[in-house]
Amino acid sequence: MPKLWNETIETHRRAVRDAALDAAAALVAEHGLRSVTMSQIAKETGVGRATLYKYFPDVEAILTAWHERQILGHLEHLARLRDQAGTAGERLKAVLEAYALIQHEHHGTELAVLLHRGEHVARARQHLHDFIRGLLAEGAETGDLRDDVAPDELAAYCLHALGAAGSLPSEAAVRRLVTVTLAGLRPAR
Amino acid sequence: MPKLWNETIETHRRAVRDAALDAAAALVAEHGLRSVTMSQIAKETGVGRATLYKYFPDVEAILTAWHERQILGHLEHLARLRDQAGTAGERLKAVLEAYALIQHEHHGTELAVLLHRGEHVARARQHLHDFIRGLLAEGAETGDLRDDVAPDELAAYCLHALGAAGSLPSEAAVRRLVTVTLAGLRPAR
Repeated sequence: MPKLWNETIETHRRAVRDAALDAAAALVAEHGLRSVTMSQIAKETGVGRATLYKYFPDVEAILTAWHERQILGHLEHLARLRDQAGTAGERLKAVLEAYALIQHEHHGTELAVLLHRGEHVARARQHLHDFIRGLLAEGAETGDLRDDVAPDELAAYCLHALGAAGSLPSEAAVRRLVTVTLAGLRPAR
Repeated sequence: MPKLWNETIETHRRAVRDAALDAAAALVAEHGLRSVTMSQIAKETGVGRATLYKYFPDVEAILTAWHERQILGHLEHLARLRDQAGTAGERLKAVLEAYALIQHEHHGTELAVLLHRGEHVARARQHLHDFIRGLLAEGAETGDLRDDVAPDELAAYCLHALGAAGSLPSEAAVRRLVTVTLAGLRPAR
């Protein structure tokens, strides 16, 4: 088959896949996790049920794929903040604040509890840990951040401390949490 | 029945109960969670199987009771550290360090994963939160600690940050984590 044809097929497949993820997420948001079926998702996606089964074996697989796409989007957002202009300290603040707000926004739903059991979450968490560690190492070198504790340990501190964002009542409280967490990272007096 | 007799019965019951908890914990430590049976626990406790069933319906109930006893012991230990002499900052440091070392020591086993699902853990966590919040409020009043963020929010920060102790490789790393966490609590410069 000509290359153009293959590309068209691939584009079509990706479009169906993306539409199925969107449909599943919208249905769960509207009706709750337990009531969503493959038939409903197929209908909302605009494909037959048999077609949907060629892409995904069950609802959980669709939701996991949707979650992986969400996480990828978050990580790309954080990477853009990391790569903007400014000192390591400023960029770290932007990244941690964005991460804490994501935690705050998405925490505690039934869907979050289901999805966060997955292995893809452990991988994303490791990726984020390495990412934050890099910024912390940079800040330690420039003197913006403390250098008496290894960046690896400080990254564990950051990610755990910001986990509190999930239980805080407001975005203002999340910003205060980031301020406190960053205060722990300043050079020792 | 005379009062003395009732007390003797009560003392006996408590002794059997405690012995069953010790036996169950020792058996799990030796053979793993899945292989421990009520018969083995009864044998190690020195009572009949039927007697053990008068105290506990199953192995999980025994392990939960054992865990509640462990948590109570930890909370008593932390309360003693809180009530010793010293500034609020010093006593907070002692409490947070002890808490972080408990997290470090007990985290990540199969038993911990099972037991930490229980409601009694949520209750203990709330108790600890209130306890830490009290120390933070005291420190904010004396000027030892920051007073620009509510003690309730700072307590959430502390407990989440120290959760990192579970994944740290050594007690020295745990102590560094406590130092960093405390640095976040100092009065804002």
